[in-house]
Amino acid sequence: MGLIGGSLAAALRRNTSGDPGFDGHITGVVRSKSTGERALDMGLVDQISDDPAAAAAKADIILLAVPMLSMRAQLSLIAPAVNSKTIITDAGSVKGRFIDDARSVFPRLNRVVPGHPIAGGEHSGVQASNPELYVNRRVLLTPLEETEEEATEAVEHLWKLAGAVTERLGAEHHDRVLASTSHLPHALAFALVDTLATQQEAEEIFRYAAGGFKDFTRIASSDAIMWRDICLSNRDAMLDAMDAFGAHFEQLRKAIDQGDARQMEDIFRRAKQARDEHA
Amino acid sequence: MGLIGGSLAAALRRNTSGDPGFDGHITGVVRSKSTGERALDMGLVDQISDDPAAAAAKADIILLAVPMLSMRAQLSLIAPAVNSKTIITDAGSVKGRFIDDARSVFPRLNRVVPGHPIAGGEHSGVQASNPELYVNRRVLLTPLEETEEEATEAVEHLWKLAGAVTERLGAEHHDRVLASTSHLPHALAFALVDTLATQQEAEEIFRYAAGGFKDFTRIASSDAIMWRDICLSNRDAMLDAMDAFGAHFEQLRKAIDQGDARQMEDIFRRAKQARDEHA
Repeated sequence: MGLIGGSLAAALRRNTSGDPGFDGHITGVVRSKSTGERALDMGLVDQISDDPAAAAAKADIILLAVPMLSMRAQLSLIAPAVNSKTIITDAGSVKGRFIDDARSVFPRLNRVVPGHPIAGGEHSGVQASNPELYVNRRVLLTPLEETEEEATEAVEHLWKLAGAVTERLGAEHHDRVLASTSHLPHALAFALVDTLATQQEAEEIFRYAAGGFKDFTRIASSDAIMWRDICLSNRDAMLDAMDAFGAHFEQLRKAIDQGDARQMEDIFRRAKQARDEHA
Repeated sequence: MGLIGGSLAAALRRNTSGDPGFDGHITGVVRSKSTGERALDMGLVDQISDDPAAAAAKADIILLAVPMLSMRAQLSLIAPAVNSKTIITDAGSVKGRFIDDARSVFPRLNRVVPGHPIAGGEHSGVQASNPELYVNRRVLLTPLEETEEEATEAVEHLWKLAGAVTERLGAEHHDRVLASTSHLPHALAFALVDTLATQQEAEEIFRYAAGGFKDFTRIASSDAIMWRDICLSNRDAMLDAMDAFGAHFEQLRKAIDQGDARQMEDIFRRAKQARDEHA
């Protein structure tokens, strides 16, 4: 249990968003005793457990919110324990990979509702849990053809109680769009900060940085393991997005190299217009 | 007169930051009547003028705050009007270029104090003027060997009255550091937004963007002409910075392509550490 699960629990426990609201029992599965005590102290959960299978055996809905490469192991642990009515959802950033993992463990995915809350940030850990984290944020669900409508609706209901707006789309489509809108920007921020940190004038570079730079590089403070796993799990879509960016970056580099004022201006105006229109 | 000059005027007119404070006369030089009226209405200036030479003839200190490629024309207009005591400073992002421009116009630069306030943002125009814009912000000055100490101190005093922290460094050094810390991030943000805007799923991409993305691309809303001029004026340092970034980006791309988890993790950890330490 970390930021993502803790914040959903916090939102459900506050029980402010809906009528009839949430009156269920919440068990937080943790690896470390201190995280569990923290979750209890913060009033996020009714109970903690360090045994995923035992917790799963008693659950109606299970939310898996672990780094992408830990999903399969967690699914393997809970698979023998769940019954035919247990709903399984997740908060992973790459839906194709989660579906592959679920397929490797379950004979049918009729109770599996892959999900992805577009929220979070550079802070992590259960101590950062925030009942407002999902308010007005999108949660993208990518149910399969075999997923039962009632299971998807139960997961939608949970997120709506936390104030989120749910949307459904295909898993492959999700992974392609997120590669552009989230995974590529993170790659750029990580690569930029890494570039600057290894330059001779690193100290000064960070000292003279203005507000825009800090906004720009905030996402480079995100968790390394989480992002390693995303890059490993969404490899093809990410490479496509990186290559598309590379071509545009090279076009701009060439314009600068050649002093092509018109071309630069076109790129900058197009970008400004798109940013102002959409964001 | 735009955001940069307007905000300095606003700060000086508020006269809150210093003792003895500022009791000088401020003339705003404008091209359009409406901008001038705006500056007067906002109480930023004592007077407006559409004649740079006439305004310069009466000034003790002149601040040039125009896009880099407009500097030379403005310097040419005021050069015949100034006297041997007039101090000339600027707010341009590329100091080498401003110095070249000043050299082409003045026989000696003893009264020229090149400067660069590290402030601003995606908003521009005199209407965005803000007396707080420079509070605790750095203003980098790159006086030349021939610049008289008293002239540099007069410019430092002005910025300090606006709440800024001034620092002195060499012009070439300034341009190299700023290429990394400001010009490169802007190039990345412009290229990223341009990449996404031209993709098939552009609508969705912007719709599913999370907060991190919006922070990341905010600087792509900056003024196109200002940034075209910066790219043209700081070409060599910018190409160096872009190539350094390109090498790190390619290293990350290769790690993703090859599924090299260790390499990814190293890059992400290094970046996170540098970001957390410095920013």
